[in-house]
Amino acid sequence: MLAKNPDVRISLPVVCFVWQIAMIILFGVFVRYDEESDAHWSEHKREKNITSDIENDFYYRYPSFQDVHVMIFVGFGFLMTFLKRYSFGGVGFNFLIAAFGLQWALLMQGWFHALDPADGQIKIGIENIINADFCVAGCLIAYGALLGKVSPVQLMVLTLFGIPLFAVEEYIILHVLHVRDAGGSMVIHTFGAYYGLTISWILYRPKLDQSKRLNGSGYHSDVFAMIGTLFLWMFWPSFNSAISDHGDGQHRAAINTYLALASSVLTTFAISSLSAKRGKLDMVHIQNATLAGGVAMGTAAEFMITPYGSLIVGFCCGIISTFGYLVITVSRRIQDTCGVHNLHAMPGVLGAVVGAITAATASESVYGHEGLVNTFDFKGKYAERTPATQGGFQAAGLCVALAFGIVGGAIVGFILRLPVWGDPSDDNCFDDEVYWEVPEDEESIPPILEYNSHMVGKYADRM
Amino acid sequence: MLAKNPDVRISLPVVCFVWQIAMIILFGVFVRYDEESDAHWSEHKREKNITSDIENDFYYRYPSFQDVHVMIFVGFGFLMTFLKRYSFGGVGFNFLIAAFGLQWALLMQGWFHALDPADGQIKIGIENIINADFCVAGCLIAYGALLGKVSPVQLMVLTLFGIPLFAVEEYIILHVLHVRDAGGSMVIHTFGAYYGLTISWILYRPKLDQSKRLNGSGYHSDVFAMIGTLFLWMFWPSFNSAISDHGDGQHRAAINTYLALASSVLTTFAISSLSAKRGKLDMVHIQNATLAGGVAMGTAAEFMITPYGSLIVGFCCGIISTFGYLVITVSRRIQDTCGVHNLHAMPGVLGAVVGAITAATASESVYGHEGLVNTFDFKGKYAERTPATQGGFQAAGLCVALAFGIVGGAIVGFILRLPVWGDPSDDNCFDDEVYWEVPEDEESIPPILEYNSHMVGKYADRM
Amino acid sequence: MLAKNPDVRISLPVVCFVWQIAMIILFGVFVRYDEESDAHWSEHKREKNITSDIENDFYYRYPSFQDVHVMIFVGFGFLMTFLKRYSFGGVGFNFLIAAFGLQWALLMQGWFHALDPADGQIKIGIENIINADFCVAGCLIAYGALLGKVSPVQLMVLTLFGIPLFAVEEYIILHVLHVRDAGGSMVIHTFGAYYGLTISWILYRPKLDQSKRLNGSGYHSDVFAMIGTLFLWMFWPSFNSAISDHGDGQHRAAINTYLALASSVLTTFAISSLSAKRGKLDMVHIQNATLAGGVAMGTAAEFMITPYGSLIVGFCCGIISTFGYLVITVSRRIQDTCGVHNLHAMPGVLGAVVGAITAATASESVYGHEGLVNTFDFKGKYAERTPATQGGFQAAGLCVALAFGIVGGAIVGFILRLPVWGDPSDDNCFDDEVYWEVPEDEESIPPILEYNSHMVGKYADRM
Repeated sequence: MLAKNPDVRISLPVVCFVWQIAMIILFGVFVRYDEESDAHWSEHKREKNITSDIENDFYYRYPSFQDVHVMIFVGFGFLMTFLKRYSFGGVGFNFLIAAFGLQWALLMQGWFHALDPADGQIKIGIENIINADFCVAGCLIAYGALLGKVSPVQLMVLTLFGIPLFAVEEYIILHVLHVRDAGGSMVIHTFGAYYGLTISWILYRPKLDQSKRLNGSGYHSDVFAMIGTLFLWMFWPSFNSAISDHGDGQHRAAINTYLALASSVLTTFAISSLSAKRGKLDMVHIQNATLAGGVAMGTAAEFMITPYGSLIVGFCCGIISTFGYLVITVSRRIQDTCGVHNLHAMPGVLGAVVGAITAATASESVYGHEGLVNTFDFKGKYAERTPATQGGFQAAGLCVALAFGIVGGAIVGFILRLPVWGDPSDDNCFDDEVYWEVPEDEESIPPILEYNSHMVGKYADRM
Repeated sequence: MLAKNPDVRISLPVVCFVWQIAMIILFGVFVRYDEESDAHWSEHKREKNITSDIENDFYYRYPSFQDVHVMIFVGFGFLMTFLKRYSFGGVGFNFLIAAFGLQWALLMQGWFHALDPADGQIKIGIENIINADFCVAGCLIAYGALLGKVSPVQLMVLTLFGIPLFAVEEYIILHVLHVRDAGGSMVIHTFGAYYGLTISWILYRPKLDQSKRLNGSGYHSDVFAMIGTLFLWMFWPSFNSAISDHGDGQHRAAINTYLALASSVLTTFAISSLSAKRGKLDMVHIQNATLAGGVAMGTAAEFMITPYGSLIVGFCCGIISTFGYLVITVSRRIQDTCGVHNLHAMPGVLGAVVGAITAATASESVYGHEGLVNTFDFKGKYAERTPATQGGFQAAGLCVALAFGIVGGAIVGFILRLPVWGDPSDDNCFDDEVYWEVPEDEESIPPILEYNSHMVGKYADRM
Repeated sequence: MLAKNPDVRISLPVVCFVWQIAMIILFGVFVRYDEESDAHWSEHKREKNITSDIENDFYYRYPSFQDVHVMIFVGFGFLMTFLKRYSFGGVGFNFLIAAFGLQWALLMQGWFHALDPADGQIKIGIENIINADFCVAGCLIAYGALLGKVSPVQLMVLTLFGIPLFAVEEYIILHVLHVRDAGGSMVIHTFGAYYGLTISWILYRPKLDQSKRLNGSGYHSDVFAMIGTLFLWMFWPSFNSAISDHGDGQHRAAINTYLALASSVLTTFAISSLSAKRGKLDMVHIQNATLAGGVAMGTAAEFMITPYGSLIVGFCCGIISTFGYLVITVSRRIQDTCGVHNLHAMPGVLGAVVGAITAATASESVYGHEGLVNTFDFKGKYAERTPATQGGFQAAGLCVALAFGIVGGAIVGFILRLPVWGDPSDDNCFDDEVYWEVPEDEESIPPILEYNSHMVGKYADRM
């Protein structure tokens, strides 16, 4: 059996070392502190007439940053521990690619968004590291579609290409089209989901059934996954408000997201119960579809969508997402381990549409003149843009996200099909034993009186 | 066997859908953003002469809000995963009723506390969503007494009635009596505990012993429960300070709670060890009684109780609460699964008494004139109230909380006894199989060579 | 078998009670609120010309405090749950000694750092409780070396002596030598690690092999440990920035730590994979060495080390730390359960060296005049100190930390060898059954039809 197992002993260390060294060199050439994190801050403060250190952007955004950081590492990481024997891979590889991706994102996003024209260098502060975490989220969503079927080396390659694709897509959507997408329904969720789904489609494994014994959850792994679910759910208001405007923008984004999430929980439970014999609930739905409201508020959270508008969005998304898990098989060829189509793709697209409609119907009577200008940033060369036009551009943004996800995923998918990446065989998917030293089970502890005999584990004969 | 199992396939979805739709309609009619989360904030800021966005209440309270949010969903949720086979129900139903309850609380508390007389609408901001989380906590405490013995439909009903009971009780205590109770020793813990205990008393199951095989913890479920314990314990300073006065009020409330909690840990370990053969510690005590100091500081945390006063409160509560778990059976009729009598009822009542005494003995020499007025809000029509009088009103507040808990619980208990809610049979309590699709155990994974055979799970013959 | 088991039924309660009562008395005599947490704050504000409550230090530091608090209780606690049958002891005793230690630290650090000369009392506020958590971290690191081999009473003694040793060491390093060490590479990590390692060396158990059946992880306990790892990893930026200067100091410390941690993840994965057959990763490395970058940035985080400098530090530490787990056995006599030598000692020393070099090479061209003075606090009697001199003092600080750790550990080690502390026998180490009531395993639940028969657990014959 072991002969079929992949060997990543050379490829994984090489990829990690070479890319990390590249990061160091590129950071050395390009990356410096911005005005608010540089020791010259006290001079800067005087120049800008800032009277207090509390006006440093750090204090506006650091609590949200830490919440987002938890979502990336514990939220996504533990959500992917639900498979009974792939918890190490779920949380561990998530950790690896997020740690690489955030460095690479600081560079790629920096070149597009934070380049100081004076010296050609990227100046980083708290907002950049939040954005880097956001950028990473796109790749982690893609990982969800591939969970258990790819090697860590493939995941590093997915991230290597995913981050620049994200950065370009984001540049076109936010800067060229001047679209608002603070929580990333388009930029993060739609892109990330279609990127992963397209790769999964290209990496189609017709004989994946050979691993079906492991493609399911266990009692405790389901509880572990709830840790991921809840930290994502609780901190989503921070995610959608982390880079919104200071003041009412952040405040409103948090409230809207809080409400939409609450609403999706109820419709998720309703549909889950309705669909099973005796009304038994399915943990897969509870772990995933309850989050759909947060995904769908990614664009409109900072708008004046109203509290009941947020509840309606969450209501619909809980239903759509749970139905996704129940009935939709977009294509038998897409083997979507975590169901990112249901959690990120559909709610992301819906969120983009909601955002476009909310933007198109914005008015000075609702926002006030100043509020409208601030919320949609109708300043400088966009001073003449109307809400209706903005709605059209928002819809265009969705198309860009879809295009980048699908085309980018196709290209990266073909790269990942090269037979050099050490992916598992069809009957070894969803199994931590392939890439990890797995301890014998606790259950196999010999009784205390036999401590001198050798430990005989349940899987000992296989090791 | 299955014939005895309840079927919630119609009732649970109907309740979730109808109530969520009702929320949407009521929010549509009543709920809007407040001045600080509305896009008119920049105009409001100018009017009020606020110079910086950082003065938006969001920045004073959002970090505490997120901590409270974690307590509600991960804290209470994981604390209730301790049963070996009811972890899904513990964390899952907690999730459901909290998500419903917070919406309902925004409405009910809004009608009583946040109604804008100008237009008859509820204006919500960060403080309202913290209060909604607080209100939900009352119902989650009640759930603790009923864990494993009720259906999700019953829990929704418990929440439907619990939230308005809470809102009225809170209105009487905080507004009519002008009592201070920032962390809710009375309003949240005393009310919630007696509400749940009274319901449990009415739902008494004489044959609950038939489920005793499942009414206990497992090694891993105890570790899961520690996640809940620790997040409650760590974030309790945020809970008690979340809606305290800006500045010294929040600062002092956090410090006092931090100290009281530390002190209860030591006395809990002491009593737990003292009570068992060879001094062996009991996880039930560690998971629960260590939190008693936080409960008991709910009223007095923002007062000048002094650091050593906080330590004394924690010291006593750790002892009382652990003794509760050891010896007190208030009545055999009260089947209190999580021991909320020991964790919330007794420390809550004690906290109210401590608060009353601390208030009654407050003086200008300790608080300063301004400090006394600010801390107890001796303004407007309460400008003439003395600390001694305040102490009396604090004690009266406790009576109101008790009365609402017991009378409300009795009424709701009788409603929940109606034979229509799909509660489990006496021999099916504490069992996730009743309401959840439970995966086969990890342990039953067939060896790798047999992947073509059908999976034979430990419980397969029952499914 | 049981005859060999220790009995802590008298000693543990006595220690907990007596020390907690001592804390109450000492707090009563010495500890009061500081100006920012006292009800006189509004008067203080006027005197100091502070215009807004948001300038209260609480709002600068509270979010970081809560993150640090999570690191202490969930981070350290769950990191120590990795042993298959010592999870209760890992997270439980961590809880106990941290709760005692933080009170004791407020006193000890208060006498050295926060004594008000006007009235001889310790005035505490948010910064003091962060520092108390830091002080506790030193003792928890030491616990890591001893995990599973000592009794809770020994751990309390270790803390009783560890806290004052820490406070004196910190006083010498930070105040006498005027060394900068905001995240504690020296003060916390070097001291704590050598304190624990020396104690472990003195408590050497030649026959520890008799417990080797339990000295390993299980599949689920490894996932629990990842909770600890990730919360430490995510919140380390808050740890290193929690007490840095307001404004750019905190901002820069967070960014530098974020980058160093990301970099260590990649080199940890690389070395771990390179070292095993077929490139299989080892959870021990992922759980620990990924954190080395945070340890090593403890001193230099607030300096202008540059973003690429931070990446280089993380790069090296990930390698060194993982190699530590692979090859270094400093001495067979040091039985270092968690490998604190690899995670805290080596990276801590390296961090001190990095800090000394970064300080020595600081210049006005990089920091600006004001920035240099603020960052290194070259004020008052230190106004004439140059960066080069500062570098020398930084190196001297490392020697002080090492000396206190080793000498202090030796003394405390000999105290802990007294045969009165109830430590486990050599064949009972790493076993929760010694100090905890351990539930029967979930696996031994009898089938539902047999609920009337007695439960027959896997280990029932031993109980």
